[in-house]
Amino acid sequence: MQLDHIGIAVNRLTDSVQVFSALIGIAPEDIRSREVPAEKVRIAELELEGMAIELMEPMSEDSPISGFLAKRGQGVHHLCFRTEDIEGLFARLRDNGVRLLSDGVRQGSGYRYFFVHPESAAGILTEFKQPNEELI
Amino acid sequence: MQLDHIGIAVNRLTDSVQVFSALIGIAPEDIRSREVPAEKVRIAELELEGMAIELMEPMSEDSPISGFLAKRGQGVHHLCFRTEDIEGLFARLRDNGVRLLSDGVRQGSGYRYFFVHPESAAGILTEFKQPNEELI
Repeated sequence: MQLDHIGIAVNRLTDSVQVFSALIGIAPEDIRSREVPAEKVRIAELELEGMAIELMEPMSEDSPISGFLAKRGQGVHHLCFRTEDIEGLFARLRDNGVRLLSDGVRQGSGYRYFFVHPESAAGILTEFKQPNEELI
Repeated sequence: MQLDHIGIAVNRLTDSVQVFSALIGIAPEDIRSREVPAEKVRIAELELEGMAIELMEPMSEDSPISGFLAKRGQGVHHLCFRTEDIEGLFARLRDNGVRLLSDGVRQGSGYRYFFVHPESAAGILTEFKQPNEELI
């Protein structure tokens, strides 16, 4: 198991890219960003050794990130860990009574994933993912 | 620059060690814990590939972690990044108007460090450290 990324909810992506590029020492032009319309979020990814920081800006007022920002302000939105046995982990956590946010492992774009409710993870929304490549 | 650890404020260390050992797949007996009386905090460290998760329980009601828990509840308290030039980073951030929590780099137990105020880091208390060993 290793940390895949830290998801950070931010008000304005351009501002936060400036802030984190200065802190982490990555040139802003080396930071890739993308839109995920299904989740109504715009993401900038800062790659560090072995993991990434994902800055997430809401694309609309009904984005889940808008709700988070209104309630908590900017900050860590979720942690994501990479596993090599996503199905086994899901089953083990479900059997241990961990509160999960889906009925099964879900298919993302190039990876499978599920979320653990913050109530079962010391207040932190926690994602687990397994890239599809690792199945080959 | 790489992520050193994620500091998580928790109500009860024993409970949270159980929770995270189940999530991350580390046996509870493999998790080291220690007290840091100067900061009034008890810490359990979960080592992952290249970084660690630090669960932090307040040792008293006047611990900084008690204040955090009362205000925000359990969750990510700070992020810490490891740098190889802590003095240079401090100077660069100070010159760029980043709000820092000390007048200079501070000496910890085996490492030097400083903190950036959440206002200058998208709402996240951010620590930078350089282990003393790297100076040799």
